[in-house]
Amino acid sequence: MKISEMHVTPIAISDPPLLNAAGLHAPFALRTIVELVTDDGFYGLGEIPGGEAITQGLLDCRDAVLSQDPFQLNNMATLLSEKFKSKNPRQLALAQSALEVACFDLMGKATNRPVVDLLGGKARDQVDFAAYLFYKYEGVGGELGFAPKPEATGWNAARGAEALDAQGIVRQAQAISQAYGFKSLKLKGGVFPPEEEVEAMFALREAFGENVPLRLDPNAIWSLETSIRWGKKLEGVLEYYEDPVRTQASMAELGKSVNLPLATNMCTTSFSDIPTAMQLGSEAIILSDHHYWGGLRATVDLARICQTFGRGLSMHSNSHVGVSLAAMVQVGAALPYLSYACDTHYPWQYEDIIQESFAFKEGALEVSDRPGLGVTLDRDKLALLHERYLKCGITERNDELAMQEKQPGWRFEASRW
Amino acid sequence: MKISEMHVTPIAISDPPLLNAAGLHAPFALRTIVELVTDDGFYGLGEIPGGEAITQGLLDCRDAVLSQDPFQLNNMATLLSEKFKSKNPRQLALAQSALEVACFDLMGKATNRPVVDLLGGKARDQVDFAAYLFYKYEGVGGELGFAPKPEATGWNAARGAEALDAQGIVRQAQAISQAYGFKSLKLKGGVFPPEEEVEAMFALREAFGENVPLRLDPNAIWSLETSIRWGKKLEGVLEYYEDPVRTQASMAELGKSVNLPLATNMCTTSFSDIPTAMQLGSEAIILSDHHYWGGLRATVDLARICQTFGRGLSMHSNSHVGVSLAAMVQVGAALPYLSYACDTHYPWQYEDIIQESFAFKEGALEVSDRPGLGVTLDRDKLALLHERYLKCGITERNDELAMQEKQPGWRFEASRW
Repeated sequence: MKISEMHVTPIAISDPPLLNAAGLHAPFALRTIVELVTDDGFYGLGEIPGGEAITQGLLDCRDAVLSQDPFQLNNMATLLSEKFKSKNPRQLALAQSALEVACFDLMGKATNRPVVDLLGGKARDQVDFAAYLFYKYEGVGGELGFAPKPEATGWNAARGAEALDAQGIVRQAQAISQAYGFKSLKLKGGVFPPEEEVEAMFALREAFGENVPLRLDPNAIWSLETSIRWGKKLEGVLEYYEDPVRTQASMAELGKSVNLPLATNMCTTSFSDIPTAMQLGSEAIILSDHHYWGGLRATVDLARICQTFGRGLSMHSNSHVGVSLAAMVQVGAALPYLSYACDTHYPWQYEDIIQESFAFKEGALEVSDRPGLGVTLDRDKLALLHERYLKCGITERNDELAMQEKQPGWRFEASRW
Repeated sequence: MKISEMHVTPIAISDPPLLNAAGLHAPFALRTIVELVTDDGFYGLGEIPGGEAITQGLLDCRDAVLSQDPFQLNNMATLLSEKFKSKNPRQLALAQSALEVACFDLMGKATNRPVVDLLGGKARDQVDFAAYLFYKYEGVGGELGFAPKPEATGWNAARGAEALDAQGIVRQAQAISQAYGFKSLKLKGGVFPPEEEVEAMFALREAFGENVPLRLDPNAIWSLETSIRWGKKLEGVLEYYEDPVRTQASMAELGKSVNLPLATNMCTTSFSDIPTAMQLGSEAIILSDHHYWGGLRATVDLARICQTFGRGLSMHSNSHVGVSLAAMVQVGAALPYLSYACDTHYPWQYEDIIQESFAFKEGALEVSDRPGLGVTLDRDKLALLHERYLKCGITERNDELAMQEKQPGWRFEASRW
């Protein structure tokens, strides 16, 4: 079994005008899809964040991939490490992730097993996700190639609606929860002054009661002092407090001052950050992300590290389509120690490249027993979204630029409040 | 694919009178073999240390194993954890290891892949081992069921010869290295006063030169003061200094006083020991052992932890037969980060339960590409060694008792020098 073809396809998907500390989501989110084909006729898929640099980085890996056996992940990892050396560890992790997931899809198909079974088997039959709430402007993103036009009811209405204050966030939370049954709520903050975002958290608590875990993610844009001040008010309200401040050292300081579990995907983001995180005790919970940590095996390893050191484990997300979601579900199912519902942007996206989109039930996704990732590529949709990529004029994610179209002169600040 | 049969077979293998800090190897070493059979006719093998308690512990796992799919390792681990709870973590790790290895053997056979391919594929084509040198009395162990009688030349002569001083150890090292081409030498110490064992290390250095890495393992029986005193003399001589002293705290102190990498399989022996090991910096190198750490996946996880925290990784051994060795080679091949040649007692054993014994070449074993562990059970040999177990009168390893037969009144001391 050898890999005989490697196809790298950058795509652009319609993305709503979601706000965050870096600015605004552009009308299209970029993803890069890799398809590996073997000489015995299987294909395997991987998906990572997109844009020209990442796509090129993946294309540069071609000679480390072609004619390899997809089971030889260690060998491939060595070849990729040699290619990127230490000059671009993030690019390496992304390429590694895309290719490893595609190899797992192939291995699963070749052995007639879901990917989860190649990662130790199911620790659970379904993976829980949290509702991902965003402040947003009105609208659902750019040209909608083949997706259904949003209807004026339920989640489809809320998805297009403006949400710029606590009441807007509560309406959004109600609509998304009613549609998908999410049992945890996370607000992407770092957009408005802290008092408004904290007000939104209290409004969510008021609307949903004490049994719905709440999370706030100020996107590392608060100062330590601000994080302490508002953190104290959120004690007893939040399930966890995600990256209010930047750097492990500040998180460690914050942790001594507030009685809230701190979570991160911005301060501790790679294995090289782990020793300091453990030494400082900077965070109680690490948000894994197979895209950034280097793949599914890396995620399993991270879970063992969290378990060994008594840290919690949750999962981070970016705007994505169904290949990433399939991988998140398969690896999430294989983690005995996944302490929290995972993040996903999936409900915000109308478009996908797989034939059968995922449907959340009671806030969870069933773990597929189909071979590999369990998804079937829709080549027409892939072609349309690739054409969109070529036409849309966006080559790299730049939330600051997108924000400036709404608010001329707006600038990103690493610590705003 | 379901497990339909589980056979647990305690065996006793002839074992030479090897000395260590706990006393003397009895004439027979005990191992427990597990065989899992699936409804589609495959069998998978596992091997762990033996004796009545361990065998019974494994037998008690039967209802967590039968009718399970061997790919569902996470589920099996949960069932086993519930069975042992926290009352016997060592028993749990051993049972978990035996059953997980047998499941990997089954998975490999079912997918027509060597176990290494289910652990990420080969990071190397051969796994290096070190010569394991022992002080010993004359003899090759108890009744030799079916093994060839030792001849009076080469390693067969040296294997039966007495080795009670530096010259004896050098002769042993020369014979074993000539026979198998080992390129690293490890002496099991903790037997004679430190000055004699240090003399042996210098004699090995004199005989083999600076290019053959040397290791000394005083079996944690030296005091901190003694470890420091003799450690200083061994600076520049040892590749690593293995467990001279007991406890992580003492190892950490020792590490500050001597300029030698410290290695352990006695102070840091499970995942629960890892946080303190990393906090104290107690050891530079951890000796993995899939039997004690809970299996092959645990070993892969331990390797990632070592890599993440900048610790070296080597591999520990007990007297064993070919199933354990096959598992050590398969997992050793899958560890990108295996920094040292592994320990093995295998050259000391005459007897095995597999049809084709392993043959070291240049101190290494080729990684088999055959499905699963790549070994074939010899049922006649298994039956003979099981009969031996029933007859030999040894039900638990007890090196102190064996020593007392040679030196009446001898007592184990946790810290002798």
